[in-house]
Amino acid sequence: MPVRPRLSLDHYVSGILSGDHLLLSRAITLVESRRADDQVLAQNVLKAISSKTGNSVRIGITGVPGVGKSTFIEAFGTYLTTLGYRLAVLTVDPTSQRSGGSLLGDKTRMETLSLNPSAYVRPSPAGASLGGVTNRTRETMLLCEAAGFDIILIETVGVGQSETVVYDMVDFFLLLMLAGAGDELQGMKRGIMELADALIITKADGTNQAAADHARVEYQNALHLFPPTGSGWSPPVLTCSALSDKGIPDVWKNIQAHQQLTVQNGYKNRRRQDQQLAWFRSLLRQQIEHQFYSQPHLRGQLEVIEEQVRKGVLLPVTAVQALLNKSWYHGL
Amino acid sequence: MPVRPRLSLDHYVSGILSGDHLLLSRAITLVESRRADDQVLAQNVLKAISSKTGNSVRIGITGVPGVGKSTFIEAFGTYLTTLGYRLAVLTVDPTSQRSGGSLLGDKTRMETLSLNPSAYVRPSPAGASLGGVTNRTRETMLLCEAAGFDIILIETVGVGQSETVVYDMVDFFLLLMLAGAGDELQGMKRGIMELADALIITKADGTNQAAADHARVEYQNALHLFPPTGSGWSPPVLTCSALSDKGIPDVWKNIQAHQQLTVQNGYKNRRRQDQQLAWFRSLLRQQIEHQFYSQPHLRGQLEVIEEQVRKGVLLPVTAVQALLNKSWYHGL
Repeated sequence: MPVRPRLSLDHYVSGILSGDHLLLSRAITLVESRRADDQVLAQNVLKAISSKTGNSVRIGITGVPGVGKSTFIEAFGTYLTTLGYRLAVLTVDPTSQRSGGSLLGDKTRMETLSLNPSAYVRPSPAGASLGGVTNRTRETMLLCEAAGFDIILIETVGVGQSETVVYDMVDFFLLLMLAGAGDELQGMKRGIMELADALIITKADGTNQAAADHARVEYQNALHLFPPTGSGWSPPVLTCSALSDKGIPDVWKNIQAHQQLTVQNGYKNRRRQDQQLAWFRSLLRQQIEHQFYSQPHLRGQLEVIEEQVRKGVLLPVTAVQALLNKSWYHGL
Repeated sequence: MPVRPRLSLDHYVSGILSGDHLLLSRAITLVESRRADDQVLAQNVLKAISSKTGNSVRIGITGVPGVGKSTFIEAFGTYLTTLGYRLAVLTVDPTSQRSGGSLLGDKTRMETLSLNPSAYVRPSPAGASLGGVTNRTRETMLLCEAAGFDIILIETVGVGQSETVVYDMVDFFLLLMLAGAGDELQGMKRGIMELADALIITKADGTNQAAADHARVEYQNALHLFPPTGSGWSPPVLTCSALSDKGIPDVWKNIQAHQQLTVQNGYKNRRRQDQQLAWFRSLLRQQIEHQFYSQPHLRGQLEVIEEQVRKGVLLPVTAVQALLNKSWYHGL
């Protein structure tokens, strides 16, 4: 990929605030960059646009591969744009551990939305860690809000950790489910089901309709077993078909009802404040580590110690104590 | 729970090395304690026994709830004890996010093994974070090795993150699968399948036998799509029935073959060295954070800053910079 010259702070900021998709994309790339100078500029961009953020409805969407997330987002997103909303779709794509390959593969996704002028689709790049990828997703969301998008959809692939990370940055969390996928699957997703503000049974059409209706009742009963959500909201179970668009408007109606309720009872504000705090703590953790490892005298020493640990000459706990004694810890 | 007086270092160490189950249990409780003085003693116990560790076959076992992990471990573990092996079973039990409830529930598990004098069953306590729980699992494993157990089974509930944490502390990673659980499930487990040293199709009996045989062929074909493992080992797909014990000896035969291969080609040693290094890095990360937050002047200041972040008065990134400037970072 050819290196483009970096733009000025003003250039990024005015481009984003005017809703320029191309400059928004370049700003996101800047935010995702690991270069130290890019990061400084990125943080300044984020500071400059911060007063223009926070005004979108933030929606997280998860579900196992095969549940039809892309198809749902195409249908739901297109519907939202027909209502006059501007929509950004962000995808969190954790990579598989050994191969480094993408779960999503290289297939082109969400072709209709990608061509819709009221929509903006941006996949997160594959990163070394789930945490790494999703940290940038939060900042990307803020850039999209400053660019004037009314609704942000954040899609995550169902592999455990990424759902809770996305949950921690949205107002409403949608869990897509398949009818008849079995109790085992339901069991595995218990922790995720508890996070959901709504369950959507997908592919409720044709010969699958009866199974979807049956699953809806089952999941609705199952949800009663969970503790109350703290928001005062009772998560509904809905069925929909992305093929016929049946049930799609109802999803949006539910999200609007949830927004109204949680704005009135103060829950939305509290949740966003808690999320802001969690983000701060996560950033702080990263920076503490970064600063620790940046200590000049540590560089060579760390390599020696790590080799001794690897060979079993030094116990991990002893090595940690030795390192901390010799560095900043000692001076406190 | 009544507080028992703490024992002396020698008392713990000699108890563990003599294979005393009661003292082993108390040492594990000590290791799991969050009290600072308990932790100092625990680290000294671990140092004292460290030369007696590393001699077991470490086996990780995962699979979705409902796959029959407990039943498999009962059958497999009992079989191992009939061969004359001493066996410890450790369970990593992440709790669900909102309720704090246990995925395993309160039902008594592995009753047969619990009563077997050659076996020792120890569930990890529910903790605030997956990482927190499993960090202690590694230390618990070392205590069990020092107590003379030949084989350590570490069971994890299938919820994403915990599998990779357990993978990072074992020699052999077993993935239990159900026949006919659908492609969606297979898709979700792709990242986990890549880690497996063997796939076991459970409940291969009665009317489920044909489906299990079919699934075996399918998974075996699927495994060919994965990149080679680096160990030179080709993960087999096996079927077994915990009811009839059919296939159980074959699981152990495969683990022995894997051990022989990886000892000969040096992979086992390399993997353990890498695991040791990963453990060190994880401990170091924890300690760096701990030391940072222990700075006396930070206590009150952090509360003020966090409140400003929560209210939106201070941007997270600005707050992080302010904190790092005022603390140890400044002196580097």
